[in-house]
Parts: sequence; structure tokens; C-alpha cells
Amino acid sequence: MKRGRKCVEEIGEFPLIERIRKILPAAGDKDLLVDIGDDTAVIKLDDRRAMLLTCDIQVEGSHFRFEHITPYQLGRRSMAVNLSDIGAMGGKPTWALVSLGLPAGFPVKGYDRLFEGMRDELQPHGARIVGGNLARTRDFLVVDITLLGEADLPGVLTRGGARAGDRIFVTGTLGASGAGFQVLSAFGKRFPARYKELVKRHLSPTPRVDLGRRIAHAGIATAMIDLSDGVAGDLYHVCTRSGVGAEIHEDRLPLPERIGEVAETSGRSVIDLALHSGEDYELLFTVPPRVPAETVQSVFGESGVPVTEIGSIVERGGGYSLVDARGNRSPLKPAGWDHFRGTETGREVGRS
Amino acid sequence: MKRGRKCVEEIGEFPLIERIRKILPAAGDKDLLVDIGDDTAVIKLDDRRAMLLTCDIQVEGSHFRFEHITPYQLGRRSMAVNLSDIGAMGGKPTWALVSLGLPAGFPVKGYDRLFEGMRDELQPHGARIVGGNLARTRDFLVVDITLLGEADLPGVLTRGGARAGDRIFVTGTLGASGAGFQVLSAFGKRFPARYKELVKRHLSPTPRVDLGRRIAHAGIATAMIDLSDGVAGDLYHVCTRSGVGAEIHEDRLPLPERIGEVAETSGRSVIDLALHSGEDYELLFTVPPRVPAETVQSVFGESGVPVTEIGSIVERGGGYSLVDARGNRSPLKPAGWDHFRGTETGREVGRS
Repeated sequence: MKRGRKCVEEIGEFPLIERIRKILPAAGDKDLLVDIGDDTAVIKLDDRRAMLLTCDIQVEGSHFRFEHITPYQLGRRSMAVNLSDIGAMGGKPTWALVSLGLPAGFPVKGYDRLFEGMRDELQPHGARIVGGNLARTRDFLVVDITLLGEADLPGVLTRGGARAGDRIFVTGTLGASGAGFQVLSAFGKRFPARYKELVKRHLSPTPRVDLGRRIAHAGIATAMIDLSDGVAGDLYHVCTRSGVGAEIHEDRLPLPERIGEVAETSGRSVIDLALHSGEDYELLFTVPPRVPAETVQSVFGESGVPVTEIGSIVERGGGYSLVDARGNRSPLKPAGWDHFRGTETGREVGRS
Repeated sequence: MKRGRKCVEEIGEFPLIERIRKILPAAGDKDLLVDIGDDTAVIKLDDRRAMLLTCDIQVEGSHFRFEHITPYQLGRRSMAVNLSDIGAMGGKPTWALVSLGLPAGFPVKGYDRLFEGMRDELQPHGARIVGGNLARTRDFLVVDITLLGEADLPGVLTRGGARAGDRIFVTGTLGASGAGFQVLSAFGKRFPARYKELVKRHLSPTPRVDLGRRIAHAGIATAMIDLSDGVAGDLYHVCTRSGVGAEIHEDRLPLPERIGEVAETSGRSVIDLALHSGEDYELLFTVPPRVPAETVQSVFGESGVPVTEIGSIVERGGGYSLVDARGNRSPLKPAGWDHFRGTETGREVGRS
């Protein structure tokens, strides 16, 4: 095959996904509740239950490096990012399939650790690996996991339900994973101990599966997504799917400790790290005006996970903006970590 | 991570799968009807229905080369090998997830063709792509497909049901794909026209999905598997899982036209190609003595696909053997195409 003309990397992930949507026949199946384009596909099983389907492919060199992560951590992390997608729909994880592309020279011990990590990440959720496939690659590891889940009907939360007037909440803090990544890039595995928590948040994220289900069951949210690309990128997915705009307040962003130091040494602003660095695997959800803030807080109850209101959904024509502490409004770039390109992109709205 | 000590390629595919089985907790879930180790996992949905789950990862250079196959053909083929797994359980394909690792320079046109091929292969079965994930690789394409299916309960056929006395049947012919691969290796894309059918069988296999369901619904079979590793390797999987032995008759193997010529020029015997070259994606199934041969034939009815009795299942102690035209018996090597190693192996029973 000739490898000339327009290439995939010139186009980027989301336009490539859009091409698939055009190639596939229009979904005519009434059981297909959510098609390509959300965190997971949703298939109606019966009147009360839906099946959730998600997958995530991770490539050595693009998504992880063994200089930074152990095979056990990688196993947990690869499973965690899938669990996070199921959690973002309000679902319960059930079954996993694991496909590996293994390079020559990959140690059997590392292979075992990888599966132990996956197992340990799944086990608290009562989920299990039930199949998979092994292949050889030339020189790097590929981990592709498909995770199934189940959700009650109604109650599945998608990216598409946000309405003008809804308030925007996020769990945990923003930018911790990105800051941890900066620490690892700067110092390698022997980073200063004070950054331990940030690095942990990067290497061993905690998917918010139980919280996702609580939010869905409580009926307090209109839309939900997990933060894999950075809040500015992920909220933009919600806006696109919901046909709305949004504004978020700079001074309300929940920041992790020591992010300021890391921002300084890495030459980026704290706000930039919080908005545009990905892989926090926290949840973002939108709450209609009729639901009081105390109700939202009560859902989080004894979870120990903070929840913060960071802004609100506006009409589509109201734009996509960041409001600073003085009330000045600037356009919010819907740019985040592009897992496909392996870079943080400065994609402009609609440029693709 | 240190890449010393024992490496995955020293161990091979099936022992690696065995390690996963040991790492995972014992399956306690009553809904998990078939766990790791068969073509697909089987999960009970309700009293009448089961869900089937399979996946297949294909790596450029190991599983396919663009010197031989077009992106459209690759799309069809990658989906076909998954359809074949669903067919082998007697199931109906439903939903697919596609993960791609795309190398830099991969043309957008080829990307489109790949998905068009997948779509066209799924469409006759009423199945559909509902999700997936895109990533970048350094220099080769990775295609990983997860395919779901549904089957009626009871009626799912696994590798584990064969009993001594059962007769062994296969659909279609054996060795056509392997012979087609030899033709492509020798001549490249400009092979002599007389080998067109063999090459087609290699590049564009037809998964026996409808036949698989007919066999399952007719209740004539005790075990079934699709032929991906070569009949000698795949029948061995059935024997291992069922705790039995088998013998097959050399002169009963259904051979494709022109395989003799190809065997001669490639320096291999016809029988070797028929037994040990993989990727025919035909079905092998075992039929208990009480079912007359005419009943088996009648299931195939107007399908136009030949079905051939090639041998029989024997007691475990009866060995695993090949019987030649004179009645001489020799050990049948359970060796076939090792998709993991990317070679045809001469693995001995129990050596691993």
C-alpha cells in the first residue's frame, strides 16, 4: 500500500472517529442506546438493564514507558482507565477481555505482574478477565482492554444530557496526573519524595466507579464524563454532544498540593496544568438548578472524595469560556491531552 | 524494567494463557459458563440467552503484510476471524469494538477502506461496530477487534463436549489458506491466475457463521471449533478440553484444487499443508454415533458447503493419530500455525 497522500496523524483522533461514524450505516437498532462517540456504547438488554462496552488501547512509548511504570502498575492502570469509562456512565464493571501485543524479550515475570495488576484492579468491583488474545509485536508492548459493564435503566448517564443552567461539578482535584507526569519527566523514578502523591495520581489513578454509580442512582445529574483528556477537552465533549456552551471559573478549580511548584519548574501555569493536562480520571457531571448543592454533597457522603462546583452550562451561543478571579472572560481552549497524537494539542474549536 | 531472564517467546502462546488462568481467581460466578481457554467466553444473560465474547489482535508484519493484502481486505479479514469464533460457538454476532494502533504515515484513505471492509463483513450478519479506540504506534498497524454475540441456551457448543465414539466432521476444504499463503510468499501479488482461489481463501476467508448456528440448533454436535491453527492443532484443543483422543484418516481429508502443485513448489507435502497450515476458518465438529451421516448432510442442505467425515474421537488412552490409506497409524503432531510466534511450530504434546 502506498503511504503517501493525507496521513492519519495530520487529521487527529476526533476527526478520525467522525469518519467511522460516516462509514458505518446509520444505527437502526432500537437496542443500541448509545453509539460510537461516548465513553462507552450502551446496549439495551431488557427493560431494566443495559450493557456497557468500552475499550482502551495503550501503546508503549506513547502511553507509558517502563522507565516510569512497573508492569504491575501498568496492569492496574490499563484496567483503571477502562473502569473509569464504565464509572462515567454510572455502570458496574462485569467482564474484561485483554489483548496483548508482546515484544520479543518481554520477561515472563513482567507478563505475570501485568495480569496480577489487572486482576487486583478488577477484583474490588467484582469484575473478571474472561478472555483475550496474545500476539507478537516487533519492539513494543500493546495492551488493549475491552471492559463490559451493566447499568440500570433508566439511569445511564451520557455526555449528551447537559442543559443551559446546569452547574458543573468535578470530583477530586485537577491536574495532579499531569503534574505527576511532569515530575517523572524531569526527575525520572528518583523524584523528590514531596511529589509522591502527584506521581501516584499519574501512575495509579483511582477510577471513580462507585461514585459514578451513586451519582447515577441519585438522579442528580444530567450528563457525566470521566476526565481523561483534561477538563477543558472533556467538558467540550459534553458541550458538543449536548449542544450547549459552558463557562468555568479559574478560582474554583480544585488544585492538588504542590502543583504550583511543579508548574513553576516545568514552565507551565497551574491553570494550564489543571485545565489541559489529562488522565486525572476524575468525574465531571452536570446538575440541574432544581437540585440543591447540599444534595450533591450528600451523595458523596462518607466517600472522602471532595466534589467541587467549577462553573455552569450556558446556551450554545454563550460560548466556551474561562472566567478569571476578576470576572474577566476569555475563550477556553477545548484542548487537552490527545492520546492519539501523544501530545497536548492546541486544537481550536471547529478547526478540524 | 529489566528484560532479562525468561522471555515470553521462549514459552509460547498456550502456556502463556495457562499462566493467566493460574493468576486469575477461580471463576465463582455461576453466570460465567465458559471462561478463558475456548474460542469465546460465554456469559449467561437469562434462562434462554447467553452472551459470547471474543477478541483477536492482528499485528502488521506478524499477521499480515500490505504487500499482500489491501486495507479493505484486511478490514474484512480481521472481522471474519472474529465472526468465525462466534460461529464456532453456534452464536449470532451482534456488536463489535475496534481498537487500532496506527503508525505515522498511514493514509487516511487506507483507514477508511479498513473500516469499510469491517462494515461490509459484519453487515450480512446484522452486526455493527459500536465503539473503539485509536492510538499511535511507532511503525506498524495493530488491529484489535472485540466481537460480541448471542446464543440460545441450551445450544452453545464448546471445545469440551467430545466423547469417545463421536465422528469428526469438517466443513469445506483443508489447507487452502496455507497454500494461498505459500503462493503469495513465492510470487507476491502477481501470482499465476490458476492459484486465485487459494489466495482468495487466504486473504478473504468466509467465516461459517450461519452453518455454525445451524449445527448448534440441529443438536447434532457435541463439540465445535473453528480451524484457525490448522486441523491438527485445533482438533488437539478439542481433545485436551474434552479429555479424549482422536484419529483422523489421511485419505479422507478434503483437499482444495491445486494444493498438490503448491505443495510441490513449496517443498511441503499436501498432507502437511492440510493438517498443519492454519487460517482455513472452517468448522470442525464432533457428532455422536446415534446421529446418522444423512442427518449431518441434511443440516448443510442447500448451503453448498461440503461437509466431510475425517475421523473419530477415541478414549484418552487411544492416542492422537493419523491413519494412512493402508491403515498404518502414526502419531499426529498437535502442531499448527502459532499466531503468537508467527511460525508453524513443531510443539510436542505436553512439552510445554
